[in-house]
Amino acid sequence: MRIAILSFDGFNELDSFVALALLNRVKGWRAGICGPGETLTSMNGVRVAVQQGIDYIEEADAVLVGSGVRTREVVTDTKLMTRLRLDPARQIIGAQCSGALVLAKRGLLGEAPVCTDVTSKPWVVEAGARVIDAPFHATGNVATAGGCMAAHYLAAWTIARGAGAAEARAVIDYVAPVGEKEETVERVMGVVGRFL
Amino acid sequence: MRIAILSFDGFNELDSFVALALLNRVKGWRAGICGPGETLTSMNGVRVAVQQGIDYIEEADAVLVGSGVRTREVVTDTKLMTRLRLDPARQIIGAQCSGALVLAKRGLLGEAPVCTDVTSKPWVVEAGARVIDAPFHATGNVATAGGCMAAHYLAAWTIARGAGAAEARAVIDYVAPVGEKEETVERVMGVVGRFL
Repeated sequence: MRIAILSFDGFNELDSFVALALLNRVKGWRAGICGPGETLTSMNGVRVAVQQGIDYIEEADAVLVGSGVRTREVVTDTKLMTRLRLDPARQIIGAQCSGALVLAKRGLLGEAPVCTDVTSKPWVVEAGARVIDAPFHATGNVATAGGCMAAHYLAAWTIARGAGAAEARAVIDYVAPVGEKEETVERVMGVVGRFL
Repeated sequence: MRIAILSFDGFNELDSFVALALLNRVKGWRAGICGPGETLTSMNGVRVAVQQGIDYIEEADAVLVGSGVRTREVVTDTKLMTRLRLDPARQIIGAQCSGALVLAKRGLLGEAPVCTDVTSKPWVVEAGARVIDAPFHATGNVATAGGCMAAHYLAAWTIARGAGAAEARAVIDYVAPVGEKEETVERVMGVVGRFL
């Protein structure tokens, strides 16, 4: 699986890096930071080198859209938005927090329930999405997560969809706190399991 | 509070960025990636610009040592290790997973219980530390966390120590999954509360 962690300037480190770190734990999977330009600067000033350009989105097997403090600006960039060639018929697609706004503007959310964070909610609603008060929801190949710590749910669902639920459990078990492995796996899989 | 998130080549993105993102949520706090050289490349190939050089450690109010796949090499670099001027008498110090090896080699763990991840445990034990099967432990100004997802505990404890427990609760509440805010805050503060 080749996975694009789509990020923009002002990106939230939690949302992009939790997904990246967890997905790369699956043998043979390659998840990298994908975005416009050569470098991106996070909401807290961390400058990172982009690993894949925007056009990689079209060839990726999965695309997870991260969150950030400038997503409302990003979606007004018509030239950039038209380059986000996402196809839920053949790709696993996910969005974290304000990333749902990107999916909404690209017409990928339809009437399905959508999760996002409290801050982004008004903008995602305005874009026509049906936002629910839940941490995670998936409809077919498209999933959304709300709240930074829900990034684990989005990652676990992506792994389960692409490599099976047992692999998702194994990855969550690996990263879970010592002494809390079993309860963490059950909590995470309890949330995402109903969407598998 | 000026906080150094000490990281090295091969660093684990979860461990460094969960801490960085959470601590920067506290008004007036500035947490940045601190390390040798101008850039660091993570265990999954993400290249980031270092925000503070190694010598910043001496002036930082808090230093959190991240984890990584090359920590065992790092601690054999005598020149680098002697530049890590950590002082638990005036600094809040924490380590995530293999970061405990750095603290052990610098003689900062003594006889106190120490947390680390399953993979790093043999090396931390060999370095003379008393490793326990728990996600988080703090003794005075020095804390250790085991398992990537225990990074939230280390961050919450650091915030509680520097800005009070109410602020730690507020930050965890903000980043918690939508619909799971209260239970997440209680879980995290339940773990770190006994060390405040």
